[in-house]
Amino acid sequence: MAQQKTIFASNLSTMLPSQFADSTDKPAQFAGLHFANEIWKHNTAEIMGHPETDADVFDTLLAFAKSIGMVDLPLQKEQPGHIVNSLFVPLLSAGLDLLVRGVADVQAIDKTWMVATGSPKGPFGILDVVGMTTVYNINKMEAEKTGDLAKQDVVDYLKEKFVNQGKLGVTTGEGFYTYPNPSF
Amino acid sequence: MAQQKTIFASNLSTMLPSQFADSTDKPAQFAGLHFANEIWKHNTAEIMGHPETDADVFDTLLAFAKSIGMVDLPLQKEQPGHIVNSLFVPLLSAGLDLLVRGVADVQAIDKTWMVATGSPKGPFGILDVVGMTTVYNINKMEAEKTGDLAKQDVVDYLKEKFVNQGKLGVTTGEGFYTYPNPSF
Repeated sequence: MAQQKTIFASNLSTMLPSQFADSTDKPAQFAGLHFANEIWKHNTAEIMGHPETDADVFDTLLAFAKSIGMVDLPLQKEQPGHIVNSLFVPLLSAGLDLLVRGVADVQAIDKTWMVATGSPKGPFGILDVVGMTTVYNINKMEAEKTGDLAKQDVVDYLKEKFVNQGKLGVTTGEGFYTYPNPSF
Repeated sequence: MAQQKTIFASNLSTMLPSQFADSTDKPAQFAGLHFANEIWKHNTAEIMGHPETDADVFDTLLAFAKSIGMVDLPLQKEQPGHIVNSLFVPLLSAGLDLLVRGVADVQAIDKTWMVATGSPKGPFGILDVVGMTTVYNINKMEAEKTGDLAKQDVVDYLKEKFVNQGKLGVTTGEGFYTYPNPSF
């Protein structure tokens, strides 16, 4: 049994602290502490409490994140996907939509974004890091939930061109680009 | 009167070449050639034809863009907002949504994006460049078109905190940040 002062924190992805708080026995000492992909490069630590998280516990987690070399990022209320995925999903969906509708190719879309924003990667370079299995699952859930036919086209495209062929992104050496030397 | 061989091209923002093609007298020699904000840093040239644009004319425009130091970006079909705004609008909307719903503050949202992607600016740094008048107008049109109440909250927020106070972004020295030395 944990000591009275012990703080519990968890990576949460799309889940919320309030879904787990009651199972912790000390809900006031529980919050989300969410890290991202490629933590060695992208050292974000998003701290998200639930309505009963103690304010001191929240501040202690911010300080803890900082102390281990992370950028501490407070959320003021619960948000599925935290900040990072709430921003990534709309951008990556827009890129996939342009590609699957045949508006432009992977290179043109990524290059536009990279030059326009000064980012080292465009939507498809990012999707390869996220990994095609995750991308496929997120789009599939969304297509099933909304019945959006354009979204279903994206799902079919991902399945046929990537998932079925084992091209899962950076981890398998091929996705929208080939690795370790992608052409973006 | 222009010579037979003259090519007409225009910046188009959210408009499409097919809206103007018939007025040019030589529709096959007309296409969109779209530059972006801060062209000296972000040298994108998106080339977008309409269904009757001649393929040679399209290729000539790609070569012309390259020859004047731009990155030539071909679109395979008409798309309002081209590639760049089709990607920017969803990202910037997601950032504004997080802010106005009180999920996180400007600094936390921008820092998350900058660390997560390696970009030099987050959504609010970008919005200050776009300028608050444009941001306000785009969101207002969207809110009126969709009747989306969350979008209307964004419109009210932009009007009250920025437009009404003359804080229009980089051009006026203040928007989400103050310039010339923004704190992101």
